[in-house]
Amino acid sequence: MKRYEHYAQDIARLIKAQTLRPGDRLPSVRQASTSRQISPATVFAAYYLLEAQGLIEARARSGYYVKTQAQPLQAEPSTAPPGTDATPVNISDLVFEVLESTRQPDVVPLGSAFPSPALFPLDKLARCLTPAMRRLEPERMVEDLTQGNERLRRLICLRYASHGTTLAMDEVVITNGAMEALNLCLQAVTQPGDVVAVESPTFYSALQALERLKLRAVEVATHPRDGIDLASLEAVLQAHPVKACWFMPNFQNPLGSLMPEPRKQALVQLLAEHQVPLIEDDVYGELYFGLNRPPPAKAYDHHGLVLHCSSFSKCLAPGYRVGWVAAGRFARQVQRLKLMTTLSSAIPSQLAITDYLQGGQFERHLRQLRLSLAQQQEVALKVIAAHFPPGTRVTRPQGGYFLWLELPPQVDALVLQRRALAEHISIAPGHLFSADRRFCHCLRLNYGQLADARFEDALKRVGELACELLSG
Amino acid sequence: MKRYEHYAQDIARLIKAQTLRPGDRLPSVRQASTSRQISPATVFAAYYLLEAQGLIEARARSGYYVKTQAQPLQAEPSTAPPGTDATPVNISDLVFEVLESTRQPDVVPLGSAFPSPALFPLDKLARCLTPAMRRLEPERMVEDLTQGNERLRRLICLRYASHGTTLAMDEVVITNGAMEALNLCLQAVTQPGDVVAVESPTFYSALQALERLKLRAVEVATHPRDGIDLASLEAVLQAHPVKACWFMPNFQNPLGSLMPEPRKQALVQLLAEHQVPLIEDDVYGELYFGLNRPPPAKAYDHHGLVLHCSSFSKCLAPGYRVGWVAAGRFARQVQRLKLMTTLSSAIPSQLAITDYLQGGQFERHLRQLRLSLAQQQEVALKVIAAHFPPGTRVTRPQGGYFLWLELPPQVDALVLQRRALAEHISIAPGHLFSADRRFCHCLRLNYGQLADARFEDALKRVGELACELLSG
Repeated sequence: MKRYEHYAQDIARLIKAQTLRPGDRLPSVRQASTSRQISPATVFAAYYLLEAQGLIEARARSGYYVKTQAQPLQAEPSTAPPGTDATPVNISDLVFEVLESTRQPDVVPLGSAFPSPALFPLDKLARCLTPAMRRLEPERMVEDLTQGNERLRRLICLRYASHGTTLAMDEVVITNGAMEALNLCLQAVTQPGDVVAVESPTFYSALQALERLKLRAVEVATHPRDGIDLASLEAVLQAHPVKACWFMPNFQNPLGSLMPEPRKQALVQLLAEHQVPLIEDDVYGELYFGLNRPPPAKAYDHHGLVLHCSSFSKCLAPGYRVGWVAAGRFARQVQRLKLMTTLSSAIPSQLAITDYLQGGQFERHLRQLRLSLAQQQEVALKVIAAHFPPGTRVTRPQGGYFLWLELPPQVDALVLQRRALAEHISIAPGHLFSADRRFCHCLRLNYGQLADARFEDALKRVGELACELLSG
Repeated sequence: MKRYEHYAQDIARLIKAQTLRPGDRLPSVRQASTSRQISPATVFAAYYLLEAQGLIEARARSGYYVKTQAQPLQAEPSTAPPGTDATPVNISDLVFEVLESTRQPDVVPLGSAFPSPALFPLDKLARCLTPAMRRLEPERMVEDLTQGNERLRRLICLRYASHGTTLAMDEVVITNGAMEALNLCLQAVTQPGDVVAVESPTFYSALQALERLKLRAVEVATHPRDGIDLASLEAVLQAHPVKACWFMPNFQNPLGSLMPEPRKQALVQLLAEHQVPLIEDDVYGELYFGLNRPPPAKAYDHHGLVLHCSSFSKCLAPGYRVGWVAAGRFARQVQRLKLMTTLSSAIPSQLAITDYLQGGQFERHLRQLRLSLAQQQEVALKVIAAHFPPGTRVTRPQGGYFLWLELPPQVDALVLQRRALAEHISIAPGHLFSADRRFCHCLRLNYGQLADARFEDALKRVGELACELLSG
């Protein structure tokens, strides 16, 4: 395939996935040429091809725009407004029950929180391990403790700088995955009994962390496409003594919502006005299907109030347990908490990833990973349209690997989860994603799987089971 | 050197180090032959040699005994009885200040908590990393999460079984070093405000963990050679609503004390009567200089009340961050806390250690490590006898790599610490090891260093500085 065809294909994919929507303006020739590092002629050739395919149209003196298509699509879910009370959390037992039941190897893991490890360059990473550790002088073994390997922290900061986000080297602490980072941040900014604002629906690990630390959750209305509703957040900030927010502005789990940039900026500003720290979970930020990496909220932080957490677990190295936190004005507290709780992250993992990043193949792997995920999303949406009950609503996220389904209200997702598991298919019922169990007819489905019949058949079967539940 | 000479040398070393003391009975010929896997004739030859050297004597129909020597030795410190109140803990700032100042590479780390990484088979471990990870099937990456690699857990259980301690496979959870294990245990058995009994002096990380979790410490009198004083513990249990104990029965940090087996057994029984869980920190258990591994308290636990924690960090693989906990009746809670806080330990570290253990070289490495540590202890004791102020008392631990010094009461260890640091030598002042700062004239010194002039010179210099403080 020629270079311009490649680019045209990428754009076509974005249109098909509704990442680019009818009326959206395509990047200018100059922008596209710069960001893709291709010649302007190649960009033109791609746009001519797309025009010929009827996907885009030129408008005089203005550029290229996505044409309006006449394709039927399933409805997206709407915002489900949460109650207004701050509630103690008690969902751990259910989460453990569901998670433990879905970890068996013969189960198709549609309910899993992890993409298939087969999507990652595990062999290349493994090859980095021994040479990286053999080069380490023994005395350095102790020096790298707690804050993490300096070379790795530098590479992480450079990566953020390349997409316009400034992190200071000395605010970054390497952690045992993002999970530890998030937990340390929560401990750094709260005391037992405090109120923490979370999205609605929320990632169950956030709820578990609140439960463990005896914090109270207040849920903020969250739009399935555009994320946190700022008016709702403002109301929550006025009604409750909120000590921190735990949000995922990029590809929220489970919704997949992506906050538009102006909204992210307004979020950071609103929280700065209230002097409320934002714990930002950005583990899916690299898994975008669009043309550019969506900036994290941290990019707009001028007050050191954003505690930005991420990891390599979802984009490069599952099982290596290397995450990080850039905790702004809370950096020292987070570092001390890390020292007191787990001392340090594993050095072999840190060094292997450092070497891999310096080897220069990370970008290529990410492009391939994003393409695989985007393609699997298309497959999943087709199967859902064909086999799930009429009235099913489904998200169309622009990144990540989760779909959020709203089934007809008569379907109890926990019953569906149990029936599916009996047929060796796991799903994540909506019950897991809220302290007040408002999402009992919703599901999170993981499409971060290999493209094979096993995945499609399992998904189809879940749809059939949902139809059976409705008719039975 | 012949086999009997080897064995004789080992015994001579134990006598010199006062691990075997005048009047102690040597193992019977049958015992020694079994435990060392040498013939009875070899044992006899060794004992004849030691008799000829004047180190042991035969007693009719009774066996061989260590002879009384006429060698002058410095006094050991005595038990320093703690106050009786439960106190909130606030030592973190001081600990961080001291630790951070001692991490520079040009500092001789006598104040470090870690032995020199040069004492470990880092190259052999590094060589295990890549092959171990390349053999892993991608799907297994997710399966091993949380509880830890099954093969590794099995090897750990087999190792305990070989010295008579029974752990159940499913009570074992792999952690990010013992530090995480201990913290998880503390969270599993306490609530903020609870009282926890600790040794006196105590490892500062225990005090930090209590501080972080808002627990109150009550200190129990601890003998520098024999560990926890059971009468004091009983008094504490009667006076306070103790929710847990955090003890190190084997080679306590900082004292190096080793609880005799009957005392350990009585400890477990006493706590069982009061239904108080024991969090056992056994990270130094493998670093014994005697003939057999001292059993952990866990060996005597019939009620699932001992939460036994250890790691490979001090005996094999620093920086790999692989520890474990066998949490008895609290195993499920600990596993859930692990899942919620750091999800899992790094898989490359776990697999490399698993392969190393299966390679069968662990025992040889441990023998060499124990010998190095025992030899360095002798060196350190000699330097201390020659260069520290008259009246200095010092422990003679039978394992581990710490000495605990009690200087004349006029010496402020924090002043000494600052003067030494100005000369690029770190020490750990007694201030770090108690919530009520009763050990201001004490020091912990780390002799787990390479045998070189740098170590001896630094230790000598600390002694000289202490003398200067006394005279000035």
